[in-house]
Amino acid sequence: MIYLTRRVEFSAAHTLSNPALSPEENQRLFGKCGNPQGHGHNYVLEVTVRGEIDEKSGFFINLETLKQMLQEEVIDHLDHKNINLEIEFFKEHVATCENMAKWIWGRLAGRMKSCELHRVKLFETRNNYVEYYGDDRQDVC
Amino acid sequence: MIYLTRRVEFSAAHTLSNPALSPEENQRLFGKCGNPQGHGHNYVLEVTVRGEIDEKSGFFINLETLKQMLQEEVIDHLDHKNINLEIEFFKEHVATCENMAKWIWGRLAGRMKSCELHRVKLFETRNNYVEYYGDDRQDVC
Amino acid sequence: MIYLTRRVEFSAAHTLSNPALSPEENQRLFGKCGNPQGHGHNYVLEVTVRGEIDEKSGFFINLETLKQMLQEEVIDHLDHKNINLEIEFFKEHVATCENMAKWIWGRLAGRMKSCELHRVKLFETRNNYVEYYGDDRQDVC
Amino acid sequence: MIYLTRRVEFSAAHTLSNPALSPEENQRLFGKCGNPQGHGHNYVLEVTVRGEIDEKSGFFINLETLKQMLQEEVIDHLDHKNINLEIEFFKEHVATCENMAKWIWGRLAGRMKSCELHRVKLFETRNNYVEYYGDDRQDVC
Amino acid sequence: MIYLTRRVEFSAAHTLSNPALSPEENQRLFGKCGNPQGHGHNYVLEVTVRGEIDEKSGFFINLETLKQMLQEEVIDHLDHKNINLEIEFFKEHVATCENMAKWIWGRLAGRMKSCELHRVKLFETRNNYVEYYGDDRQDVC
Amino acid sequence: MIYLTRRVEFSAAHTLSNPALSPEENQRLFGKCGNPQGHGHNYVLEVTVRGEIDEKSGFFINLETLKQMLQEEVIDHLDHKNINLEIEFFKEHVATCENMAKWIWGRLAGRMKSCELHRVKLFETRNNYVEYYGDDRQDVC
Repeated sequence: MIYLTRRVEFSAAHTLSNPALSPEENQRLFGKCGNPQGHGHNYVLEVTVRGEIDEKSGFFINLETLKQMLQEEVIDHLDHKNINLEIEFFKEHVATCENMAKWIWGRLAGRMKSCELHRVKLFETRNNYVEYYGDDRQDVC
Repeated sequence: MIYLTRRVEFSAAHTLSNPALSPEENQRLFGKCGNPQGHGHNYVLEVTVRGEIDEKSGFFINLETLKQMLQEEVIDHLDHKNINLEIEFFKEHVATCENMAKWIWGRLAGRMKSCELHRVKLFETRNNYVEYYGDDRQDVC
Repeated sequence: MIYLTRRVEFSAAHTLSNPALSPEENQRLFGKCGNPQGHGHNYVLEVTVRGEIDEKSGFFINLETLKQMLQEEVIDHLDHKNINLEIEFFKEHVATCENMAKWIWGRLAGRMKSCELHRVKLFETRNNYVEYYGDDRQDVC
Repeated sequence: MIYLTRRVEFSAAHTLSNPALSPEENQRLFGKCGNPQGHGHNYVLEVTVRGEIDEKSGFFINLETLKQMLQEEVIDHLDHKNINLEIEFFKEHVATCENMAKWIWGRLAGRMKSCELHRVKLFETRNNYVEYYGDDRQDVC
Repeated sequence: MIYLTRRVEFSAAHTLSNPALSPEENQRLFGKCGNPQGHGHNYVLEVTVRGEIDEKSGFFINLETLKQMLQEEVIDHLDHKNINLEIEFFKEHVATCENMAKWIWGRLAGRMKSCELHRVKLFETRNNYVEYYGDDRQDVC
Repeated sequence: MIYLTRRVEFSAAHTLSNPALSPEENQRLFGKCGNPQGHGHNYVLEVTVRGEIDEKSGFFINLETLKQMLQEEVIDHLDHKNINLEIEFFKEHVATCENMAKWIWGRLAGRMKSCELHRVKLFETRNNYVEYYGDDRQDVC
């Protein structure tokens, strides 16, 4: 079993806000991150997949295949977009890095053929990131 | 003469759009960067000042003074903000990195006391940045 | 279960020395890292916590809460300090990166409320780092 | 149990090619990465070992010992080399990052004395890396 | 006058060798960098251009135009290539970073329309880079 | 004329203090950076030299020569040292990054043979750095 990671970047606007809450409660929960006019980030995404090396090719997934998947499932949807306004899911869920990582996992997991999705790691800034390993996984890491 | 640089980061939303132009011309000029819903970046700003070392302190400006200036003149205005909607100047000027660097220069230049402002360097992403040295400078660098 | 990591930096002096050993044995064990006059580093600390996302907020711990904890429990004690001379624990334990990671774990573990401490990762330089997952953990990662 | 990682770099040429396949099939599998004239990378290698801290030294392996091992077992063989032409193993195996990580594991695992080899992480570029934890390991991370 | 920089990467093989010299003299001059089998790098190229901001667009060159130029004039020629064997100029000139920077300048300078080429900065590794400002420039920076 | 830069790192302890001043005045000038017990940094030094490319070698200074100079003139003196206590000059001058850059310039300038020293750039942390171009230089950059 070997693990392969591909790193990509996208630039997007978002704000933290729960439409079910009052402006005051949003302000209390999210502070400056909840500015209704929005702010933005250069998000960095690392996606890790795992599999057994195929002897003929020396890999278990062609890197070009993985890049293509990330382009179609993630970059085309999030890059140069306003996450709150342009992604259906985030009209009803808070656009935290945590929820975004789960959303990305959901888009990618079904696409894997020669390998399994292992981890979605999403950096909001260099100083903050989240990691998600799927829901049916025991807590091992 | 010695040069001191301080690096800070801020996260903001913007879009590239000239309100005097038609949507079609904006689209032609700015492509995906002109998405009207906006997108965003973790901007990195490096501000360089220069002066003569004072023997008593071993510096020409206290780094804390410079940090304070950057906080008040730049970070407090741009961090977690929507540049197009919340900065007066960018309601009438395109919010390019180029114009933002000049705007930052304009805010800082008048604040310098023990030293001169030398350069404003602004990264929109790791791959793109602009540098501005002020307008009255000969082209030397 | 999702994992959130916060990265902070602090600058400190230290030296590697075991006061119970002779200067010669210290020199043999620690080489240049045991220079009695000390040296220093820009340490980089990444602290990872884990929990279940709360639907209302979209997170399981407010990042501001985590930043505050790291400030109070780590930065206020280690930043711009001499670790050997100013931290009680390191008057009797060698100030290796390994021991510092365990010390940081000890300060943070008891503070967690809505989540669990998962990992302390401490970089001494860009080229060397240690990771600690607590003592009662099976070796899974 | 604590984990220590050392990071090193080496610059090498390689190409992706399986000598058992036709030029056309190599081209189809490897694209531009299979250019027969070769290309190259600044590889970044992170090797993680684990052990129990020794109270006398505050570590479980002297960093100098680990650096020496990496020099002898990896850097001396791969740095400023052509991997396909100068490493026996890669005359018969495709020189992918995946296979290189396993080859590095094989060279290092037998050298460990006071600790165990935990992970070999190899970056081909900043955007692509693989991780290998050995073959007898359950899938835990 | 404002300066805009675009950063790109390419992976290539090269070796340092002057075909007019004996193997011994090449060895003496170039050491391990002259291994005849070659080695390689992830080169990082930063190209800086300068001009006056156009009020309508807020820039003086569309970043997409600059990216296109770099793709056509540099990346298409050097990425995943063997510089010594596949670039005509380097069959007769030593493939040092210094000569490569001048070669890149030569390809780009004639392409500039709305701006001037200011600087070519080429990193061979994170620790070594060269900068070239053209030949007709006084030494000002 | 072409410019070559070499980057090196060293880890050292220092404190900011002017022995001619009272503790109170030192505290006022230097704040936490003046903690008498000292603190430390992973300093990053970039040294830039310039010259004309020699056709035979493709460079104007052998990188190995430059590395050797930096080792002998800088690293051997500052790495794993306490700057205030172990460098004669800093017993009487404040150990600011500004003064350290000038001190490094002084050690290197006389060693140049086939080229000129152009710039000393010294990072105290990723966020703060100084640049020095020598004293007899007009202010051009």
